Amino acid sequence: MRRIAVMTAGADAPGMNAAIRSVARRSFELGYDVLMVRDGFEGLVRGEIEIMNKKTVSGILPLGGSIFGSSRVSSEFAVQNLEKIRSVLESNSITTSIIIGDRSAVAVAAVFDANSIPCVVVPNTIDNDIFGTDFSIGFDSAITTISDALDKLHSTASAHHRVMIVEVMGRQSGWLALYGGLAGGADFIAIPEQPVPIETLATHLKQRKEEGKDFSIVVVAEGYPVATHEPTVAGRPVAGYGLAEALASTTNLSIRVTVLGYLQRGGSPTVFDRLLATRLGLAAVNAVREGKSGILVGEVGQRIAFTDLKEATSQPHVIPADIVLEAKTFY
Amino acid sequence: MRRIAVMTAGADAPGMNAAIRSVARRSFELGYDVLMVRDGFEGLVRGEIEIMNKKTVSGILPLGGSIFGSSRVSSEFAVQNLEKIRSVLESNSITTSIIIGDRSAVAVAAVFDANSIPCVVVPNTIDNDIFGTDFSIGFDSAITTISDALDKLHSTASAHHRVMIVEVMGRQSGWLALYGGLAGGADFIAIPEQPVPIETLATHLKQRKEEGKDFSIVVVAEGYPVATHEPTVAGRPVAGYGLAEALASTTNLSIRVTVLGYLQRGGSPTVFDRLLATRLGLAAVNAVREGKSGILVGEVGQRIAFTDLKEATSQPHVIPADIVLEAKTFY
Amino acid sequence: MRRIAVMTAGADAPGMNAAIRSVARRSFELGYDVLMVRDGFEGLVRGEIEIMNKKTVSGILPLGGSIFGSSRVSSEFAVQNLEKIRSVLESNSITTSIIIGDRSAVAVAAVFDANSIPCVVVPNTIDNDIFGTDFSIGFDSAITTISDALDKLHSTASAHHRVMIVEVMGRQSGWLALYGGLAGGADFIAIPEQPVPIETLATHLKQRKEEGKDFSIVVVAEGYPVATHEPTVAGRPVAGYGLAEALASTTNLSIRVTVLGYLQRGGSPTVFDRLLATRLGLAAVNAVREGKSGILVGEVGQRIAFTDLKEATSQPHVIPADIVLEAKTFY
Amino acid sequence: MRRIAVMTAGADAPGMNAAIRSVARRSFELGYDVLMVRDGFEGLVRGEIEIMNKKTVSGILPLGGSIFGSSRVSSEFAVQNLEKIRSVLESNSITTSIIIGDRSAVAVAAVFDANSIPCVVVPNTIDNDIFGTDFSIGFDSAITTISDALDKLHSTASAHHRVMIVEVMGRQSGWLALYGGLAGGADFIAIPEQPVPIETLATHLKQRKEEGKDFSIVVVAEGYPVATHEPTVAGRPVAGYGLAEALASTTNLSIRVTVLGYLQRGGSPTVFDRLLATRLGLAAVNAVREGKSGILVGEVGQRIAFTDLKEATSQPHVIPADIVLEAKTFY
Repeated sequence: MRRIAVMTAGADAPGMNAAIRSVARRSFELGYDVLMVRDGFEGLVRGEIEIMNKKTVSGILPLGGSIFGSSRVSSEFAVQNLEKIRSVLESNSITTSIIIGDRSAVAVAAVFDANSIPCVVVPNTIDNDIFGTDFSIGFDSAITTISDALDKLHSTASAHHRVMIVEVMGRQSGWLALYGGLAGGADFIAIPEQPVPIETLATHLKQRKEEGKDFSIVVVAEGYPVATHEPTVAGRPVAGYGLAEALASTTNLSIRVTVLGYLQRGGSPTVFDRLLATRLGLAAVNAVREGKSGILVGEVGQRIAFTDLKEATSQPHVIPADIVLEAKTFY
Repeated sequence: MRRIAVMTAGADAPGMNAAIRSVARRSFELGYDVLMVRDGFEGLVRGEIEIMNKKTVSGILPLGGSIFGSSRVSSEFAVQNLEKIRSVLESNSITTSIIIGDRSAVAVAAVFDANSIPCVVVPNTIDNDIFGTDFSIGFDSAITTISDALDKLHSTASAHHRVMIVEVMGRQSGWLALYGGLAGGADFIAIPEQPVPIETLATHLKQRKEEGKDFSIVVVAEGYPVATHEPTVAGRPVAGYGLAEALASTTNLSIRVTVLGYLQRGGSPTVFDRLLATRLGLAAVNAVREGKSGILVGEVGQRIAFTDLKEATSQPHVIPADIVLEAKTFY
Repeated sequence: MRRIAVMTAGADAPGMNAAIRSVARRSFELGYDVLMVRDGFEGLVRGEIEIMNKKTVSGILPLGGSIFGSSRVSSEFAVQNLEKIRSVLESNSITTSIIIGDRSAVAVAAVFDANSIPCVVVPNTIDNDIFGTDFSIGFDSAITTISDALDKLHSTASAHHRVMIVEVMGRQSGWLALYGGLAGGADFIAIPEQPVPIETLATHLKQRKEEGKDFSIVVVAEGYPVATHEPTVAGRPVAGYGLAEALASTTNLSIRVTVLGYLQRGGSPTVFDRLLATRLGLAAVNAVREGKSGILVGEVGQRIAFTDLKEATSQPHVIPADIVLEAKTFY
Repeated sequence: MRRIAVMTAGADAPGMNAAIRSVARRSFELGYDVLMVRDGFEGLVRGEIEIMNKKTVSGILPLGGSIFGSSRVSSEFAVQNLEKIRSVLESNSITTSIIIGDRSAVAVAAVFDANSIPCVVVPNTIDNDIFGTDFSIGFDSAITTISDALDKLHSTASAHHRVMIVEVMGRQSGWLALYGGLAGGADFIAIPEQPVPIETLATHLKQRKEEGKDFSIVVVAEGYPVATHEPTVAGRPVAGYGLAEALASTTNLSIRVTVLGYLQRGGSPTVFDRLLATRLGLAAVNAVREGKSGILVGEVGQRIAFTDLKEATSQPHVIPADIVLEAKTFY
């Protein structure tokens, strides 16, 4: 008899509830017991675990966030609390854990696996930085939020040329900036992977002004290294304002800044994310049924793919080079 | 020197303008001339063709419909007007046509190809019935409209059990019903590929009522064969109302009908469709650059794929069997 | 000490939860007890009533439908169950009931009032057919759904002239059709208050076609009397299809039908409805505080207005004549 | 014979195109000539004026921004260019100008009026700071953008308490912050009209944390005076980050900032704004027909109201005291 514990871990992202629902519905269908863990690994350590039924997942498909709650912990947390975790799972007769979450959740799952605690991971993060799946659940919803913002900015034109800087999430990577910017028709996309001198950007914007363009929209990832200096407010970098200052010091362009922040994590999942969450949740339970463990369930080339957690944690998820190249056609 | 004619053909769908923009931007980048054809093949026969510039495609990315206009003609139309078409293309020194459109457009393009008129097709239809691409541009936008409708219906619960029937497009196929229904959490999905006796549906709905569910949402494709009889209004079948009548005659459930109709063709394309249109438009021009012709440019397994037009027209695009099976978990 | 029972009654509508939240928050602030009644008057008769706390209303502001559930009953139901109702209210020491709902709810409240059961009504119906308030909560959300649908239809143009008929709610009145149609730029609006011969509509549409318009959008209220005949399906009139048939028999226009149905009741309330619900809910509690009873709390000319329930039930809420006149400028 | 010049002036706002369309449609109906002026008063001075026809306003109802373009100039600009303006208007035989715009546009119109240049103003600004109308066109759309953002933030909850600061527009006034915050269920709203010590806010947020609330959302107007210091980036104040720094220095709360910026000016107008624009545009032409001039056309208490431009420019549009008071119930 299978008894599955389900939890959401790491930063929350759209589609977590859709994934929970899919795991639960498939488990009910197979006659498995399903238990929910509150607040991710922190709740697991505290033993906050309870049985789920059909009512638990009724109506949650379109909801943003996670009805279970989530928490972000490091892999050290898992190492330090390993016996506590093992004891909670054993006392609840859990045969496998299904962990829905981000890169930090994959790292913790790898600790589980290295210590013979059965687990399967469903990748769910707006950052799309997990190896083993073309797209993580939540990414499409986040770039939709970015693209919607660019649509709104596009509709507000000015007689005089104005530059709109939109800061999006992405400390190490430009996934969100590049895809969101492409979908929203950005006029320049600044990603950490490809820093350019501020003069290059300034020249590009001045050219657009000379071509008679009403305005320019620049999308910048929060982790983009602004060359001249790096302003921080309340201890956090503000790449959008940093870029605004740098541009203001070398051009006479009129510049406005929008910082999307946590908007990108919120909202109802898109259809793409709902279908992906549904598919991956179902595949995760099927993997459990087949006795698989220590794997991440992803979709690669439109097909379900299983990746060993050691490989998933050791590899970065790099933006395909051809997409980066293609993007250049549009700015 | 390349001179490309671009046209949108068949029923319109979200993403046509995004595809036009991508074709144009890549052509400008390569130094090609690009000409726009008004109203699809009808406009082509009438010689309504003019040169495009950067202004033509400025700001069109988020727009629904097609800025060129479109028209649906049969392949016979192409056969009958072949010399006129050839003459218009030659007098404008067109080296290749890029045709953005639905299954009827593919059929016409196959006539072009069979008669040595160079062409490349970009699949763009909400029906997703074109062989050679996992998804056609526009499909994701249409299932988003369906899913949004189901979200709205879900939020309006009643004390007494009520059945909401939502009729969606799909004469021969359940692509829209199945994917839209899955994403929106439908409680039953009736697709032409898998007719069930009305008693089966009635029993399913009565069971849900007995389980204490507030209501049930049934998604039905317009081409679903309602067994008992087939009502038509103004010469068209109305599967939604047909199903309502059939259910009303065998149960005492309270039934309401929503018919989405052309809503599904409209609206701004989703991020998925914008990115797909951008990618396929770009790949179409690259194919022209490499001297390819008589092909459809699709995306299969996340990679650009070229399919011979003979193959594209001779094969149906069947819903994957595993998806149909997976869907059963949810209703 | 005040003890308030809150219930939602009649057909559900966007904004009910926002109104519940406002009533509860204001009551908590004043130190009143607030109790929730399940499923409207049916739940009241069954004694399904329980105490509310801050948690009950946390996060409900944006939710569609009613977290309490609702039910539609006639005023006879109230007459027949009067002693049961009185007994439930007394046994729970309720001093006043706040009833959030539609015209049927106002009728029941009038029975309460006539029998000395203290009550205050907050008007909440997409039909906007309640006398005593310029706008009922939910109306703006419903016309937003209609207008969004028209926006989508506008974006899907055809080379050949096509007529899109959109059937909206409104058995007796054209409130939804007129306001939704005006906001969405309809080309003709057919309301029960002003039937026109089918020939007039046909002529109007043919003129538009001759003027070179790509298409026409006709909004029709479900209660619009289609002259030639009145088709029904599953026992309900289908004005949209009726109009399609009538037009098809006198013109050669290509006609498509969309039936919005219960979509109009669903979805998150608009900002307008949230603010109105917040304001009226608060005013209802303030009215209770001042000892008022037997009244409806509305907003007239941007100011809170109290209307005696006898007056509210005896008067129709007529569309202002100047709006009907103004609308003619646009079609 | 009337010949009307229409222009949009000041910062752009949703609904400008809806207002243009209404002015044009009513003018066509009355047989007046209508001319459009490009880029507001700057275009007027340059003589950029041309005749409009039905095609000009076809399909513009849902579009954000202004199809004419706009520009913000001071009343001094009008004084300095008065003879040029008079000459352009006379050479085009303009009998009246209809000016759609913000407070700066009202100021310029007052200069026109003081110099016997006939004009009528339609108030259209997200700031809602124009005296003579309960609501300016565009305000409802902007608070919808704010409320949507708060809905998204609400859906992304954290296990640990987190404070989300959302900076909205409003240099001098809290209209946007108060109404947008109320509609979106903000937990604290900081408006310039009512500065509070940072300690008061810190205490409020700590209390919420102690009550077990997952997170708090604070809406702050950009003009809110953050007591401790006033950070600027690129020469502009950043109240959101200023508040974040001030809170970070007195609490150990985890704080995140979103800056909506120009998003608030963009996007398709809401139904409320479309109906208001339609009504005020129509009333403006009717006023011209009746020979009125030097007035602003607003809606007060749901009725069309005319305000003398001298009065409109001399009075501030103050947030009603009862709304400010009511808001306190919710945070």
